[in-house]
Amino acid sequence: MGGFGGATAVRRTAEGRYAVELDADYGFDEALNGGYLMAVLARAALDASAHPHPVATATSFLRVARPGPAELWVEPRKSGRTADVARVTLVQGDRPVVEALLTTGTLDGDAEPVYSASVDQLPPVGECVTFDAGNPARGFATQVDVRYDGATMGWLDGRPSGIPEMRAYFRLRQAYEPDGVLLALAVDALPPVVLNTGASGWAPTVELTWHMRAVPAPGWLTLHGRGRLVSDGWFDEEVEVWDSAGRLVAQSRQIARAGRNRH
Amino acid sequence: MGGFGGATAVRRTAEGRYAVELDADYGFDEALNGGYLMAVLARAALDASAHPHPVATATSFLRVARPGPAELWVEPRKSGRTADVARVTLVQGDRPVVEALLTTGTLDGDAEPVYSASVDQLPPVGECVTFDAGNPARGFATQVDVRYDGATMGWLDGRPSGIPEMRAYFRLRQAYEPDGVLLALAVDALPPVVLNTGASGWAPTVELTWHMRAVPAPGWLTLHGRGRLVSDGWFDEEVEVWDSAGRLVAQSRQIARAGRNRH
Repeated sequence: MGGFGGATAVRRTAEGRYAVELDADYGFDEALNGGYLMAVLARAALDASAHPHPVATATSFLRVARPGPAELWVEPRKSGRTADVARVTLVQGDRPVVEALLTTGTLDGDAEPVYSASVDQLPPVGECVTFDAGNPARGFATQVDVRYDGATMGWLDGRPSGIPEMRAYFRLRQAYEPDGVLLALAVDALPPVVLNTGASGWAPTVELTWHMRAVPAPGWLTLHGRGRLVSDGWFDEEVEVWDSAGRLVAQSRQIARAGRNRH
Repeated sequence: MGGFGGATAVRRTAEGRYAVELDADYGFDEALNGGYLMAVLARAALDASAHPHPVATATSFLRVARPGPAELWVEPRKSGRTADVARVTLVQGDRPVVEALLTTGTLDGDAEPVYSASVDQLPPVGECVTFDAGNPARGFATQVDVRYDGATMGWLDGRPSGIPEMRAYFRLRQAYEPDGVLLALAVDALPPVVLNTGASGWAPTVELTWHMRAVPAPGWLTLHGRGRLVSDGWFDEEVEVWDSAGRLVAQSRQIARAGRNRH
């Protein structure tokens, strides 16, 4: 099994223990993408639960995860008809690298919302813009196909809009229809929204919580990212993921450090 | 020490162990308020950290907490110049009741935002409405002073607006100026926003993550709550807390179960 399924595959080695091989193709240089790591956490939590959907994932990014072997520890905290809760820790070199409280549940694919907010449509896919971050032969850009609303990409040309927002279409380059695990990747797939307020450099996520809200339809996902406050070296980034049927399928908020240079 | 300080006071009993007496005055009948429990978690995490502010608190509500004695376990996961991260568990009757990943940091009270969103003003306090939930002689309403924007309170008169939103001024009834611990109470102080979409009954929070964004000024806080999707028995509720100086001081999102009757 290759592609996203293979890159996130976990192998159960004992009760509550899993092995994973972290894939450099889901990273930038040697730092792995946070959404990819959350997708791996979800695989382990779902394997250990009777429920099929990662309803809530509250994640602390403790250290930088590196490509290569890692271990996952799943510690059940509650088991219920509506939801299971587990503590899931990604361990590398005997140290906790990422830790999450992960709630799994069972969403009804045919549910009709009692209430749903709406969002503005993006321009058609064909009118959106793409770019390659760094070396296109390797890394995140070789795996995901992201088409940006040009109105939110002024930072690319050195003309940041001043508004921390970004919008894009999202899918994998391989054939892989959206599911709960791919939503983990989607909620952290945009470049940092603070690039539009003049920040540059690495913007490491400290904490990210995301919620799966509905079973996504096949096709493109759309990502609507914004921040509410950039201050004191911290910024928030909220991403809503909508599916091709026009339904809100995931929501996230992360708190991150703005504009630190990595080296 | 009485009031909110006393009700959230924790006593260190050993390395990483604290005792607390949970106060029925921060509950509804016998179920304690989630924000109160998060305030107690914050006290323990802050005591164990060199940093003074609860920057990120990602909380799973596993079981119903009851008034009376409880224990807090604080397990450090990372210690850093920018932030500490700890796992904090409230234990009652030998069972984990609430568990959080809690990030503490040091916010600069004089920071000038690089960017800040804005919100609509509420009507003046004197034009807002109040109500007593249940027995006014005891419980949450005896501790907090909440003045609601009448435009968001149609559900009180059986005329829910259909829009899951609620806005209010918030302070304690006692003299206690806002701080990071009070913000934990504030982010979960509104009635469930789904009361405005026709839901009734208990709406138990499954997961709530909140972020402290700035050091709050003295005076009233304002709470701006909304939900984006009510579907399949689940709803989200996001609350922004703004201070009397017009600054965004906290953000939260919770995922909860809609319209379950409690007994």
